[in-house]
Amino acid sequence: MNSLRALLLVSLGCTLSPVRADEGMWLFNNPPKSQLEQKYQFDPTPQWLEHLQKSSVRFNSGGSGSFISADGLTITNHHVGADTLQKLSSAEHNYLQDGFYAKTQAEEQPALDLELNVLQSIEDVTQRVNQAVKPGMDPATALAARRSIIAEIEKESKDKTGLRSNVITLYEGGSYQLYRYKVYTDVRLVFAPEQQAAFYGGDPDNFEYPRYDLDICLFRVYENGKPARIDNYLKFNANGPKEGDLVFVSGNPGRTDRELTTFELGDARDRALPQRLDLLFRREVILNSYSDRSIENARRARDELFGVQNSRKALKGMLAGLLDPAIFSKLQSDQDKLQKEMQAHSGKQEDFQKALAAYDQIKSAQEAIIKDSSAYDYYEGRRGRPRGFAGTLFDYARTLVRAAEERAKPNGERLPEFRESSRGSLELALFSTQPVYDDLEELMLTDSLTDLAGRFGAEDPLVQKILAGKSPSARATELITATKLKDLSFRKELYKGDSAAIKAANDPLLNLALLVEPTARAARKIYDTNDEAKQQAYAQIAHAKFAIEGANSYPDATFTLRLAYGTVRGYQENGKEIPAFTDLAGLYQRAAEHQNKAPYNLPERWVERKDQLSLATHFDFVCDADIIGGNSGSPVVNRDGEFVGIIFDGNIQSLVLDYVYTSDQARSVSVDSAAIIEALRKVYQANGLADEIEGKRK
Amino acid sequence: MNSLRALLLVSLGCTLSPVRADEGMWLFNNPPKSQLEQKYQFDPTPQWLEHLQKSSVRFNSGGSGSFISADGLTITNHHVGADTLQKLSSAEHNYLQDGFYAKTQAEEQPALDLELNVLQSIEDVTQRVNQAVKPGMDPATALAARRSIIAEIEKESKDKTGLRSNVITLYEGGSYQLYRYKVYTDVRLVFAPEQQAAFYGGDPDNFEYPRYDLDICLFRVYENGKPARIDNYLKFNANGPKEGDLVFVSGNPGRTDRELTTFELGDARDRALPQRLDLLFRREVILNSYSDRSIENARRARDELFGVQNSRKALKGMLAGLLDPAIFSKLQSDQDKLQKEMQAHSGKQEDFQKALAAYDQIKSAQEAIIKDSSAYDYYEGRRGRPRGFAGTLFDYARTLVRAAEERAKPNGERLPEFRESSRGSLELALFSTQPVYDDLEELMLTDSLTDLAGRFGAEDPLVQKILAGKSPSARATELITATKLKDLSFRKELYKGDSAAIKAANDPLLNLALLVEPTARAARKIYDTNDEAKQQAYAQIAHAKFAIEGANSYPDATFTLRLAYGTVRGYQENGKEIPAFTDLAGLYQRAAEHQNKAPYNLPERWVERKDQLSLATHFDFVCDADIIGGNSGSPVVNRDGEFVGIIFDGNIQSLVLDYVYTSDQARSVSVDSAAIIEALRKVYQANGLADEIEGKRK
Repeated sequence: MNSLRALLLVSLGCTLSPVRADEGMWLFNNPPKSQLEQKYQFDPTPQWLEHLQKSSVRFNSGGSGSFISADGLTITNHHVGADTLQKLSSAEHNYLQDGFYAKTQAEEQPALDLELNVLQSIEDVTQRVNQAVKPGMDPATALAARRSIIAEIEKESKDKTGLRSNVITLYEGGSYQLYRYKVYTDVRLVFAPEQQAAFYGGDPDNFEYPRYDLDICLFRVYENGKPARIDNYLKFNANGPKEGDLVFVSGNPGRTDRELTTFELGDARDRALPQRLDLLFRREVILNSYSDRSIENARRARDELFGVQNSRKALKGMLAGLLDPAIFSKLQSDQDKLQKEMQAHSGKQEDFQKALAAYDQIKSAQEAIIKDSSAYDYYEGRRGRPRGFAGTLFDYARTLVRAAEERAKPNGERLPEFRESSRGSLELALFSTQPVYDDLEELMLTDSLTDLAGRFGAEDPLVQKILAGKSPSARATELITATKLKDLSFRKELYKGDSAAIKAANDPLLNLALLVEPTARAARKIYDTNDEAKQQAYAQIAHAKFAIEGANSYPDATFTLRLAYGTVRGYQENGKEIPAFTDLAGLYQRAAEHQNKAPYNLPERWVERKDQLSLATHFDFVCDADIIGGNSGSPVVNRDGEFVGIIFDGNIQSLVLDYVYTSDQARSVSVDSAAIIEALRKVYQANGLADEIEGKRK
Repeated sequence: MNSLRALLLVSLGCTLSPVRADEGMWLFNNPPKSQLEQKYQFDPTPQWLEHLQKSSVRFNSGGSGSFISADGLTITNHHVGADTLQKLSSAEHNYLQDGFYAKTQAEEQPALDLELNVLQSIEDVTQRVNQAVKPGMDPATALAARRSIIAEIEKESKDKTGLRSNVITLYEGGSYQLYRYKVYTDVRLVFAPEQQAAFYGGDPDNFEYPRYDLDICLFRVYENGKPARIDNYLKFNANGPKEGDLVFVSGNPGRTDRELTTFELGDARDRALPQRLDLLFRREVILNSYSDRSIENARRARDELFGVQNSRKALKGMLAGLLDPAIFSKLQSDQDKLQKEMQAHSGKQEDFQKALAAYDQIKSAQEAIIKDSSAYDYYEGRRGRPRGFAGTLFDYARTLVRAAEERAKPNGERLPEFRESSRGSLELALFSTQPVYDDLEELMLTDSLTDLAGRFGAEDPLVQKILAGKSPSARATELITATKLKDLSFRKELYKGDSAAIKAANDPLLNLALLVEPTARAARKIYDTNDEAKQQAYAQIAHAKFAIEGANSYPDATFTLRLAYGTVRGYQENGKEIPAFTDLAGLYQRAAEHQNKAPYNLPERWVERKDQLSLATHFDFVCDADIIGGNSGSPVVNRDGEFVGIIFDGNIQSLVLDYVYTSDQARSVSVDSAAIIEALRKVYQANGLADEIEGKRK
């Protein structure tokens, strides 16, 4: 399964080859019109595009979804909803494991800190951003200037429209676009199957095909305490697609690295990915070991463990791709070819010289990032989430410490995650009432502190201050036991105050966050400045690339709405034909082959109601649309814009799509709309819900 | 569980504090007479000692055991026998999981490559070794001289006595002792319970207490096709020990590091242990993931996975110990104190000056080892078993390549593992008919090659040669598919030949072993030379220590027979009293508390026969004897030398015994002899076996 979490752990930017069949994660304001026309004789009208865009939903927790009724019914994957299912569960009600169904709206359960975004409009602000960032500025000054103008544009838009407004950097700095979203924060859980139905086959079948998973979860968005009235929602086609059909995927791919230089890819292969995998391996072992101790432990750690296993499998696949000389040499020859074209091109020579020089600039900047990477990874991390201090409570501590520091600055000078435009999301997360388990926090923090000592040595002065003369385990227990950050009112009170109030609180976890703040900030500065230098260089390359290839291209994924397209079709593997569809009968077969043993055991309801099912119903299917983590829950629609399936995974061969598109074997995996209705009606006896989805309620 | 495997992965070298209550892994030729006299008014007579020594058995696969009948019946732990159980199992018979019982001798199953050793005599050869190694020799010359004289002594003894003869380095080079063993290689499996009874509670309960495990396995040694006649075997006392009883443990502790300098301990804490743990984490994840795919996969990987999990938990505990400032500062202050005593002592000043200088020599040598540690770990490893190429087949390739090279040299110049004295053990392993599974070999080798690329970078010249233009996965598949090393006759044929024959065979795995040989050899040389330098320095320290503390001490563990002693007693943990004994009733309680879910599920037989059991029977117990990995299966005997229990584990608090003895909470964990008889008779209906054990058969 291909959740965004896999990607949030990977921080690496596109093969420069000409676009081939069915490739691309396209911008809604620059769709692949000529490709669709040429190959499929299909013309996406502006109305068709707008309807699909506004029916598509982003789950800010890291996934995609879509509206499928006028009353705000929203479908996504079970593994996207899992975060909510986990947070709503307790020792008494294990919704993540056992599933959930609200037969009436009154029974629908409010998610604790879930934010959904619906893209309303896109505005090109490239010129305005580039006017603020003058040529010749050094990276630090350019970074400050860019942050300031982006904050200004976002705030202006928010004030004017009331919509969430984000300036998105596309083509690695070649273009800046203002995205405006309608935001829903009253989101309620409607339906989830048992995890064993949603994630049938478990870790072994994850990122594999054929599959037999009902990976869906249904929510409803509310406004003013009532189900939201939705104008743009997808008509549900309960027949599913047919083999060979043209289908579209509308969702939010999290991150691709197709524009990275081979120097950076080599670093990802030899350093970044192996180091992240080491962390995932240790987390998986530690969480597994904790989970084995008791049923309640297993429940508490379930979603976290799933996320770790999912990321581990994704990153292993990505690393395997980069370690495949066929792939890496292709990436290298694409880069070499582009550089030769730059040298030979008859356009504006100065620009091509700058683009060629950009490769060296990127290398230098990346070398500086590598040099400081340990401090950055362990103390700062992406958007301030470090490797060194795992757990919800340290997250709160870091956020409170930073928020007090950042909010004292003008909006334009803040770190992006503390801009006014991010305030709503930040507060939603900080004021969550999600359960926090001391034992799990201690386990994670003990391991993080052990990892920290292993990285820097137990006698490193900062490590010694962090451990405060105690063992990692004793220190973690002390910190988690004594902190008051579990208390929501304490967090709310502190959030109102300033940095002096944070210091005065004298809370041990806040003190820890304060202790590491100078080191973390220094590492962030080195990273951000060099990243800005890379961005400037990438803009030069993008500029040259546009000149050579024209604007008919798509940028690397940025967890913003994209349109992919492809054909429903199987593939060959080891000389074997893998068919495009699985059916319900196959599920029962697979269980029998494995003597119904975990992770191939059938949920009880599925055993009991087998006789009532039409076993020939299509269950899952594959197509060759270009997707990546973050696309989880994306609707698959047909030419008529009807919902025919929902993306939930890519096969192992698709993991390399992070670096390069291929359609030989790489496939996205979806639940068929036919299986959704069949299961809802016959397994879950959720006819009311099925009627709403099929538009039969009115 | 505390198998030697944990230790074979750890290569580190005593607190120098005066011996305290119940401390020590004592030599049979230097027992703790005064301590036993003072505290327990017990005098171990030479006869008592000799009988216990000759009743004790070493399992060369990494454990301990004892004779318990005149007909060669040998008891050890299930997790020591697991290697044999795994190798004897197939898709049809899963002895490791389901257990085994030979009701008649004809049904006893020959182990595939199991060697048992019984210590017959000990001879001090320190003078002879030290005469060959002249003062002032540089480390390389000294190493060659020492190897040569040791090989000579061993061969001489073997030729004279026919016994396996090994010169053991004690006190880190302060003393050399010739150990002579009677060897048994016709060893047959008699009885094993289900793994779920032997390892009840699984990984969560491993290294924990209270416990409810029947961790036993019974073998019989044969000579000339008949059960061996055993003169020295332990009388079985089916009542078990009582709280407060003095008990003895006779077994083979694998390795302790109580004599290491704090510089080396700091390196273990900050580098060696974290790196080994990283390997174990990745192995555990990969083996778990493989095992989850099918029941047969789980069976194939079971013993390997157990070994990895066991080592991971052991090393985590050891690392936690070193990261505890209370422990580390104690080790540091002990070292400081000894150094002060050396400075102040009125003895031979020159010796004390040399001992003080030795600390710097050790530091320099260790720094050289650290500098080259990546190459050593990945390409060579301890006794030639590298991190870089996991799997049985590469082991064979390495052994064949090395054997051909080494046997061309005079015995005294060979690497120790290729000396004539080691030949029997080497051939037993190389000519094993253990099953080899291609898929598992490919899995392990793929991961090893990925790990290798991550360590040295995919563009490292040697890595490129190893991968031969392929991805790790494609390369591993190619190597494992094409090698003929699975074929015993091919191995036997090659073993007869020389290095030219190895090259001429043109086998891909042999070629890989040949390719890395120069790098591996170079790393071995750096390691061994510096290790020799350390040994010379340690001999100086040992010499000074003897002068200060007298000879009433014990050396670090060396997987040779030692005598430990202690009291059967519980301990306090978090203010709670942990009783010394558990009983059979507790097993059923624990299962009920966990709703009989894995790893707390009861084997079927135990459920069915609960009513027949006397539930008040003691099951497991703890005592404060000083043990470590390798002691698994050691008999626990009372003052009368009667078998009253069998060591199978230490609690979490005992893992620090690697570095320092403590008896506050550290406890060894044993199966009570009473539970063994109760289970054999009532659960397993093995009355014939129980009669033989209790001496009721005649």
